[in-house]
Amino acid sequence: MTLRYDTISFLSDYGLSDEFVGVVKSVIRSIATEVAVVDITHDIAPHDVRGGGLALARSAQYLVPGVVLAVVDPGVGGSRRAVAVEVGDGASVLVGPDNGLLAPAVAMVGGASRAVELTAEQYQLHAPGPTFAGRDVFAPAAAHLCLGAGLEDLGTLVPVESLTPGMVPVSRVDGERIFAEVLWIDRFGNVQLNLDPAEIEPLGNALRLTAGEVGRNVRRVGSYRDLESGELGVLVDSYGLVAVAVNRGSAAFELNCTEGDSVTVETGGSASTTSVQLQPKRSD
Amino acid sequence: MTLRYDTISFLSDYGLSDEFVGVVKSVIRSIATEVAVVDITHDIAPHDVRGGGLALARSAQYLVPGVVLAVVDPGVGGSRRAVAVEVGDGASVLVGPDNGLLAPAVAMVGGASRAVELTAEQYQLHAPGPTFAGRDVFAPAAAHLCLGAGLEDLGTLVPVESLTPGMVPVSRVDGERIFAEVLWIDRFGNVQLNLDPAEIEPLGNALRLTAGEVGRNVRRVGSYRDLESGELGVLVDSYGLVAVAVNRGSAAFELNCTEGDSVTVETGGSASTTSVQLQPKRSD
Amino acid sequence: MTLRYDTISFLSDYGLSDEFVGVVKSVIRSIATEVAVVDITHDIAPHDVRGGGLALARSAQYLVPGVVLAVVDPGVGGSRRAVAVEVGDGASVLVGPDNGLLAPAVAMVGGASRAVELTAEQYQLHAPGPTFAGRDVFAPAAAHLCLGAGLEDLGTLVPVESLTPGMVPVSRVDGERIFAEVLWIDRFGNVQLNLDPAEIEPLGNALRLTAGEVGRNVRRVGSYRDLESGELGVLVDSYGLVAVAVNRGSAAFELNCTEGDSVTVETGGSASTTSVQLQPKRSD
Repeated sequence: MTLRYDTISFLSDYGLSDEFVGVVKSVIRSIATEVAVVDITHDIAPHDVRGGGLALARSAQYLVPGVVLAVVDPGVGGSRRAVAVEVGDGASVLVGPDNGLLAPAVAMVGGASRAVELTAEQYQLHAPGPTFAGRDVFAPAAAHLCLGAGLEDLGTLVPVESLTPGMVPVSRVDGERIFAEVLWIDRFGNVQLNLDPAEIEPLGNALRLTAGEVGRNVRRVGSYRDLESGELGVLVDSYGLVAVAVNRGSAAFELNCTEGDSVTVETGGSASTTSVQLQPKRSD
Repeated sequence: MTLRYDTISFLSDYGLSDEFVGVVKSVIRSIATEVAVVDITHDIAPHDVRGGGLALARSAQYLVPGVVLAVVDPGVGGSRRAVAVEVGDGASVLVGPDNGLLAPAVAMVGGASRAVELTAEQYQLHAPGPTFAGRDVFAPAAAHLCLGAGLEDLGTLVPVESLTPGMVPVSRVDGERIFAEVLWIDRFGNVQLNLDPAEIEPLGNALRLTAGEVGRNVRRVGSYRDLESGELGVLVDSYGLVAVAVNRGSAAFELNCTEGDSVTVETGGSASTTSVQLQPKRSD
Repeated sequence: MTLRYDTISFLSDYGLSDEFVGVVKSVIRSIATEVAVVDITHDIAPHDVRGGGLALARSAQYLVPGVVLAVVDPGVGGSRRAVAVEVGDGASVLVGPDNGLLAPAVAMVGGASRAVELTAEQYQLHAPGPTFAGRDVFAPAAAHLCLGAGLEDLGTLVPVESLTPGMVPVSRVDGERIFAEVLWIDRFGNVQLNLDPAEIEPLGNALRLTAGEVGRNVRRVGSYRDLESGELGVLVDSYGLVAVAVNRGSAAFELNCTEGDSVTVETGGSASTTSVQLQPKRSD
């Protein structure tokens, strides 16, 4: 059997404690046995459309061309549409809820060429109760796309302009300060900001970061290796964005910040991060 | 090579922090290279046979026909038997400990047709210490079944009536009250009860739930979308059972309950879930 | 297409919350579509080279021959080399950082026959920022080895004697006491020590364990089944090493110990594990 697509990349907020991910994969394999499912992550915080959309966008350029199945769906059972979005003139198709989750990744790969609302019931499972969209709508759609179903077979084509846009925050410059936002904190505590390297270029290499109550003077460096052990610094991360990092430590802990927090970046007075050394009082 | 079964669906309480799951999959692939392993979940609480059995039963109707490998085994090294249980006249075979774990899923798919105790050592690995049953007994049995080994090759056939039954709790009606039990709390905090929709039908749409110290008047609704944001309600879930849910919130948190807890359902005085508004005492 | 290796076994400290593991697998599949990736575990504690090396060594004898990709890399971006290490005269190749992570597994399977530093940029991805070694260096190397690239194609061959050794702790005997170390605590709380069964043989079957402030008299038994429910005991585990276990309980909790802690083993006064019963003072 010739497959139209041989890979489904799968991201969700289902977690791995319940059997949701396993059931979705079983449904896919029951329909399209030869298709491989590559898990991106299933540990998006429950209902965190923003976090899921950013993870998908970070992954997008590395994914195997084919079908991308993404489900973070706080409005399940509500009025949001279930959609499939074609990109790259059919090189890939993203399947998921039309709530902004897919939008940043779609933008990353050049925009949507066509989109369909998943309304064709012959490509869905009949649920014993209310619809479990991942299992009953999205997984069958992804599998049938791999088998060769056309976008138009899965339901009603909709204008790509009608798709819900993503909500990627933009930075703001006010005089000599840049107001940025924490896009992502990874497992190692690295803090990715919504800043391109060019944006902080005019500020020089000695920077001051302010996150809530915490203010720190830091150096801009080229790589982790340029930081002393335990030193907080600013660098370009492996995705090409500005990040705050600590060599063998957690920048998120140092800045006491979390995803979505504001961080102000400005020129710093000194690049030193040495703690103040309290001298014993001389008794003379 | 023609495979008898091409898929092993795998559930356990091994977790993903240790290498247990990876080693079991490596053993399977070393014996039967072409077989795909689909993980159902490995985050069953350690030794929670009841929780594992229910997760397997919820998944059963969606699994790819083939071999199901399930290991939750508090009696490891003890006297419980290792078994393979054939269902659907050979459409699938469930492999695991004979401690009730497999029973609810076996019942879901129509009951066992044959069963074998896994005693044939030529289909087992020799351990450097005591047997690690998943790695040394269950994984090789699952892999060899895929390659075409007959049930009778793996050991001694045993009567299906001798298999340990599952312990799925049944509800109890006492006058106008139904005493139910929490079967499952999922990642999103939905509380699945051991009740068919028909059981609560006579109680009407305004219900009162009592879980321990917590009592709440709730509405019975058709879907999440019928609940106000934050409202607690009762609905039929996507498995066809009665569940308590909160639109964009956790019903388990609202009811302060956990799996195995008792929940009483009766006709409620009012469907309102509005908190009592304490009025300031009039001073006239 | 004929593959040189058809399996990549993958261990890391990436966790499953971020998309790192998914991106690495996507890169592998983009290069070598037919290769299967078997996850060993990705929940090695961040930067825990010792824990990762031990998990890899425990798994080694069960892995499918082929490529092993292992990444726990606190010195990322620093001066440690990226390497591929051939074992078994080419039966398998281990790919990862040269920081001691691979060494225990390499030793387990008979030592390295050849090694290469991964310097050939034509077998690497170009990163939008600094290198993400797993994605840009290790994954492409693993995939190209499967496709048939020779070790010498991937960079500069280096002497196997130059590889960083592992740091597996050895036990120490002092008179009648053995000073051991906790190698591993698994999900079920079993405490694996760095002791061969032969080392504790002379001490008899009634043993005394001391871990920090906790001292316990325990029995040496053949299997979990020989322990009373809740009893702490010493046995040979399924890897052939000495372990402390509790039947249906956590030995790590009982001993209040963690990985890397010291445990002293000596001949015990009594095999009883009964807690001392404080008698009420007689008032006569």
